[in-house]
Amino acid sequence: MPLRKLPFLAYSYTQINFSQGQREMGSKAHVSNSECCYPMSGGDGLHSYSRNSILQKKALEAVEELVNTIIQDKLEFNNLNISGISNTFHIADFGCSTGPNSFIAVQNIIKAVELKYNSLHQNDPPLEFHVFFNDHINNDFNTLFRKLPSPQEFFAAGVPGDFHGRLFPKASLHIVHSSSSVHWLSKIPDEVTNVSSPAWNKDSIYCTGFLNEVVAAYSTEFQKDMDNFLNSRAQELVVGGLMVLLIPGLPDGVHCSETHFGANYDVLRSCLVDMVKLGLINEEKVKAFNLPIYHPTTKELEVLLERNAYFSVERIESLPAYLFPSVQSNTSFMRAAMEEVINQHFGKEIVHSVFEFYAKKLSANYIDYIQKQRNVFIVLILKRST
Amino acid sequence: MPLRKLPFLAYSYTQINFSQGQREMGSKAHVSNSECCYPMSGGDGLHSYSRNSILQKKALEAVEELVNTIIQDKLEFNNLNISGISNTFHIADFGCSTGPNSFIAVQNIIKAVELKYNSLHQNDPPLEFHVFFNDHINNDFNTLFRKLPSPQEFFAAGVPGDFHGRLFPKASLHIVHSSSSVHWLSKIPDEVTNVSSPAWNKDSIYCTGFLNEVVAAYSTEFQKDMDNFLNSRAQELVVGGLMVLLIPGLPDGVHCSETHFGANYDVLRSCLVDMVKLGLINEEKVKAFNLPIYHPTTKELEVLLERNAYFSVERIESLPAYLFPSVQSNTSFMRAAMEEVINQHFGKEIVHSVFEFYAKKLSANYIDYIQKQRNVFIVLILKRST
Repeated sequence: MPLRKLPFLAYSYTQINFSQGQREMGSKAHVSNSECCYPMSGGDGLHSYSRNSILQKKALEAVEELVNTIIQDKLEFNNLNISGISNTFHIADFGCSTGPNSFIAVQNIIKAVELKYNSLHQNDPPLEFHVFFNDHINNDFNTLFRKLPSPQEFFAAGVPGDFHGRLFPKASLHIVHSSSSVHWLSKIPDEVTNVSSPAWNKDSIYCTGFLNEVVAAYSTEFQKDMDNFLNSRAQELVVGGLMVLLIPGLPDGVHCSETHFGANYDVLRSCLVDMVKLGLINEEKVKAFNLPIYHPTTKELEVLLERNAYFSVERIESLPAYLFPSVQSNTSFMRAAMEEVINQHFGKEIVHSVFEFYAKKLSANYIDYIQKQRNVFIVLILKRST
Repeated sequence: MPLRKLPFLAYSYTQINFSQGQREMGSKAHVSNSECCYPMSGGDGLHSYSRNSILQKKALEAVEELVNTIIQDKLEFNNLNISGISNTFHIADFGCSTGPNSFIAVQNIIKAVELKYNSLHQNDPPLEFHVFFNDHINNDFNTLFRKLPSPQEFFAAGVPGDFHGRLFPKASLHIVHSSSSVHWLSKIPDEVTNVSSPAWNKDSIYCTGFLNEVVAAYSTEFQKDMDNFLNSRAQELVVGGLMVLLIPGLPDGVHCSETHFGANYDVLRSCLVDMVKLGLINEEKVKAFNLPIYHPTTKELEVLLERNAYFSVERIESLPAYLFPSVQSNTSFMRAAMEEVINQHFGKEIVHSVFEFYAKKLSANYIDYIQKQRNVFIVLILKRST
């Protein structure tokens, strides 16, 4: 077991320390661990995802050229079953939220596909693009649709549903894209909120990386979810089709709590613990709270992909994640992503206070924060093999 | 010019009679005549479309058997470009609102297609169905998605946009359905709200059928919209594909104001005029108000289809429209359909009052109402010809 480190900020406002008595008190701190469904914050307001997703946008910008190169090199139209009456190229983005990042990603792909197609098929009719935007059934599709670019260079459709299962007919997609989505787990692993389990995540709300049992519980769930995601997409992609995944991850050998993401989650927990002390939220609720998030490393993904028979890895790379320039932008990002998780677990009325505490606490500890290690975005480009 | 009759209920609470002075007052009672976009009432509440669309549901039930027969007789799988890697059948419903009628319609079609396919292709893999639900960009797709049947026998997608233009790639649909939708015009004809025009619709808010100039303005707009709808669908349907349209219409030779639909609209106008007298709404606003609705006859549709080169008429029939059993159910139907029109023209704050007036006025005149002629649902089944 690696050296146990104090989670970031545990020494700041709050000494985070559940007593041994609490640990033995109940058999299982109850939480509904059924399928999670936490869409990003909807609408177009101050705290919306659509206004607070620059981290994700920067990752997309960083991979634009790489995606273009792979499409020029690896996409083979002859094998894609595109010819015929309908000259249509099908793209799906999984975890689209309310845009606009999803639109940017899709437009980059379209530009690259057109470039290649037009160079090879000068005498054929131009391609038409049918683009599918997927997210949870509770995602704010109304906002997504109102924000669709105009004029559109593609035909758009929204696809509601959990991407760990099938959402499209067999062999109906040519390129699949998903950015900042597959690190959201389909459920919180049962063990991490079970006070009788060796994997009870007593002192944290996420997989810090320092407790082997917690790591095992989280990474097992992540692998299961990824297998489901990959196997579903394998059915939906035509043979020869490409998949571009951007996953907010960890540099190899680095624990989550040593990074900015981990620091954010530590601040969040510390705020919750403060609010317990102030009588604003229930202690049991905090004990039962874990984030349905797992940040993998490149190595973990390589192992996972090695045992998947449907895809060849065309590229796997780590890009440094964007650094927020201010406490405010960092807080807004966290709120847009986490609001619904907080809302569902603690109730809507508490959300605003949580992020008021959050901004103050992050501000007070900003120097510690910026000294943490940068996270990475793992770019994974796969090809549906025969 | 046919004998001018008093519109229904003009003699009840309100004598509807704009003075000549008003007619000459201004050149054009201003109304924004840009593209209309009036989705049915969203959500799942008391006044929602999803709870108040029995008229439309009854029409669907009445045509179920007919649609099944046509699919058995006229759908030819060999010509539909279905075979190949992806064994997928594509269905689109235009004007889906928030369900559930759209789901019923689609499920009936799927049942009929499967019946035929399975009888002919016993050794082939089963069909997969990809179903697209279209409505205005401001439709409440969030509610639609949450109400999707579960378990689903099809892959679902929502398609936002105006169905008078292209919404799908070329030759990408096998069956198109649209119920109670194409009678909504893309805009209110300019002339009917222009006080200087001979087509100024001074004494009504819809096409009663008794003023030739008003009829010409409304029917011209309807024909233009239908041409755009048909020509767009002609591009999107595969050759051999079918289109099922249900249109709330008029019996041949009957004017709209002689029917229940017309009576409903007369009651609505009468309420608005009452509310002007009570100082609740502005008189100019009422003068500038017309419904973007046109109910055609079978004959009109036949003429329109004769000049369309893309479709053959497989069936055209009139079915009597459902009769609401109570003032309440009739009022709820009108509110679910008209709330957004009233809202956009007069403001949200007035909507509830309008339909309170409406229920009272309809109740007070119910005997007159039920003596009006029944409307019809025109069933139109077309085939995309070569």
